[in-house]
Amino acid sequence: MGRRLLVIGGDAAGMSAASQALRRATYPLDTVVVERGHWTSYSACGIPYWIAGDVERADNLVARTAKEHRARGIDVRLGVTATEIDLDRQRVQVLRGSAPEWLDFDDLVIGTGARPIRPDLPGVDADGVLGVQNLDEGQRVLDVLCGAREVQRAVVVGAGYIGVEMAEALCARGLDVTVVQRGPEPMTSLDSRMGAHIRAALNRLGAQVVCGAEATGFDSGADGWVTGVVAGGATYPADLVVLGIGVAPAAEIATRAGLPTGASGGIRTDDRMAVAEGVWAGGDCVEVWHRVSRQHRHLPLGTHANKQGRVIGINVTGGDTTGWARFPGAVGTAITRVGDLEVARTGLTRGQAAAAGFQTVSETVETTTIAGYMPGSEPMHVLLVAECGTGRLLGAEIVGGRGAAKRIDVCAMALWQQMTVAELAMTDLAYAPPFSSVWDPVQVAAWKVAGSV
Amino acid sequence: MGRRLLVIGGDAAGMSAASQALRRATYPLDTVVVERGHWTSYSACGIPYWIAGDVERADNLVARTAKEHRARGIDVRLGVTATEIDLDRQRVQVLRGSAPEWLDFDDLVIGTGARPIRPDLPGVDADGVLGVQNLDEGQRVLDVLCGAREVQRAVVVGAGYIGVEMAEALCARGLDVTVVQRGPEPMTSLDSRMGAHIRAALNRLGAQVVCGAEATGFDSGADGWVTGVVAGGATYPADLVVLGIGVAPAAEIATRAGLPTGASGGIRTDDRMAVAEGVWAGGDCVEVWHRVSRQHRHLPLGTHANKQGRVIGINVTGGDTTGWARFPGAVGTAITRVGDLEVARTGLTRGQAAAAGFQTVSETVETTTIAGYMPGSEPMHVLLVAECGTGRLLGAEIVGGRGAAKRIDVCAMALWQQMTVAELAMTDLAYAPPFSSVWDPVQVAAWKVAGSV
Repeated sequence: MGRRLLVIGGDAAGMSAASQALRRATYPLDTVVVERGHWTSYSACGIPYWIAGDVERADNLVARTAKEHRARGIDVRLGVTATEIDLDRQRVQVLRGSAPEWLDFDDLVIGTGARPIRPDLPGVDADGVLGVQNLDEGQRVLDVLCGAREVQRAVVVGAGYIGVEMAEALCARGLDVTVVQRGPEPMTSLDSRMGAHIRAALNRLGAQVVCGAEATGFDSGADGWVTGVVAGGATYPADLVVLGIGVAPAAEIATRAGLPTGASGGIRTDDRMAVAEGVWAGGDCVEVWHRVSRQHRHLPLGTHANKQGRVIGINVTGGDTTGWARFPGAVGTAITRVGDLEVARTGLTRGQAAAAGFQTVSETVETTTIAGYMPGSEPMHVLLVAECGTGRLLGAEIVGGRGAAKRIDVCAMALWQQMTVAELAMTDLAYAPPFSSVWDPVQVAAWKVAGSV
Repeated sequence: MGRRLLVIGGDAAGMSAASQALRRATYPLDTVVVERGHWTSYSACGIPYWIAGDVERADNLVARTAKEHRARGIDVRLGVTATEIDLDRQRVQVLRGSAPEWLDFDDLVIGTGARPIRPDLPGVDADGVLGVQNLDEGQRVLDVLCGAREVQRAVVVGAGYIGVEMAEALCARGLDVTVVQRGPEPMTSLDSRMGAHIRAALNRLGAQVVCGAEATGFDSGADGWVTGVVAGGATYPADLVVLGIGVAPAAEIATRAGLPTGASGGIRTDDRMAVAEGVWAGGDCVEVWHRVSRQHRHLPLGTHANKQGRVIGINVTGGDTTGWARFPGAVGTAITRVGDLEVARTGLTRGQAAAAGFQTVSETVETTTIAGYMPGSEPMHVLLVAECGTGRLLGAEIVGGRGAAKRIDVCAMALWQQMTVAELAMTDLAYAPPFSSVWDPVQVAAWKVAGSV
């Protein structure tokens, strides 16, 4: 028996930490992972595409199974729930079935993830009101779709990333889909001018979109199954409801142990991903340093989870040649596809920038994904937000046809390096007619904003 | 009559300079553009797609016609060749037909572009041996393809960007195409491991690719029309030959006037694009500051030409609020498509890095364009070159399926900011299954190189 590394949660952060530690340890390492669900190292982001039928089986979403991890020497225990962390005695209480058990640790990694927010509303506990954050929850949606009950009408509550992706998936399954959304347009992490394009894309998929309608309750029938969603004073009939109003860090076990959490409820770590002596955390249960707003934020994304897991794995085994490995934070990059529309954002919206104390200017341009004269050219819109006076880029949003959205990475890199829009407009981006206009759309927008800084 | 701005060359650099100057001038500006050819502001990069039939007419490649420029107050004179610059008397001799004429200037912009290199080989002046750099030359290729002479076999000499793009275009027109290339693989601006993928893509298009075969002469028939290309000791029959062995700056008029040129023959400017008092130059006739090798290089690309033209237009009218506008140089980004393969590069190859005095490490990874489990996922290869010890990124190359190549922009941004591969691996790039794996392929490669720095 070597030094015991105990990991709570077998998805991206936890398994990355375990794998990396095992690869780097120069001493005997006893690596144990407890996972409440039935899967390890899976792509939660792929769930909507699995439900849509683009991806055939849940297995396809699994990068590495428990069996494969075990073959590499990680003791993965599925269906085991961690219930308590005892920091003083360096042990974690776990539950498999009904028998509690204590597992000792030398190092502990908390990768408990996030869970879909279930609003405290009348009827929310009706059957058929489902969140979608892990494979087991995804399977539950599929069970409903493929079950004996006739399911024709679905209501998606909330039009964030999961909401619009699930709306598309349910349209693909042939359901009548209604999206009800509190905000003025779908995806309030983007400007409402961008949101209007997303609403149109949802409509083209056949989904009805009701904006400015906050859900206030759920109706159900005598059998306890949901029959409708009450929102904005109207009732939208539903045989299935998907909750897409966001996720919250599943950090209760850390809070109860007295570990620090931030305003979002996420665990607060340093940039080594350390929470306390010998305690590490990563993934959707932690807060992330936002490099533009300079605030800790809950940014639950697989990209951060994977990086944080690796950082933990390096540090837990003593660091590398550069000393401690560091997770440098994020700039708020996100991307999705809504039918034929690509959508991406990074940095701060105008509202977020104002809230973070910046005075801003912004400009939107409409251009084309590739040279306008080429077959396959499609419209795209770029919105850039910059700081008044300095011209520093603060945020970017892109919606458009194929090839539009991944361009957000250029803006993410510019944000990362605190570049100005004038600098961005002069960088050396790739151009050929099948890929871009000669001024890349991002640079067209940067040039325009630079003129009004 | 105001101050006279005289522009030689009516494509990207020249017309951008003229348009920008006219927009900014706060005094009467008399803007005259002389252009040898019959077109203004056209996309030379679009010529292969026009010849392939993807783009219907030459007009489609014209962003703004001479007539449109004239309507905005620019005196555009087509079919007029500048033959001499008299700096002392601030005038340029031009030729329309046979009558020379002198045009005075207060400010002069030289935007004479580049021309295809015609190697000094026996038979190179045979009919049917064509370069493709401007619309008139493109039209000549189309005239041959659509003319009375039967054209079945085409040989493309040189497999750089224009070479491979023209090979694809001629395959699309149904010709039997052979590409002969001196180097070991097509596109020697990339590593030969990447070149092998490009060769395979050309083969899939139906083109024969002969590498390691330097052209040494051209055969022609009694009528003076080309009949074959002699290369590497063999003769390849040809009814049409396209020269794709590069372009050279068309800077003779500047050289004769005593203006400074660099080793490439391109005009040497400062970062304001000034060559001498009241003399400016931009586009394919100038050298560009390469930010990675820290050398002046000839990088003939529309992106640089457009930016340089704008910089000239601002400076010629007195600069802007920031003082002089500056062209900050380039990092050597380029992109193209070869059949179903996307190809891009930026920075320095291993060879170029060594020549610039860097000790390098490099790694290649094979990943997928999007999440591997998604329909439409295709292979992609990323090669990164970094400096030993520091880990600074020096160059990047990408080949792969749809969505692969434009990712080079992330590397271009990293080069621009002199980032290390370890930093790059931790940046916040956009991820969702339809767009990327959770570690972006560029970051997979960056992580791998970082481990061997």
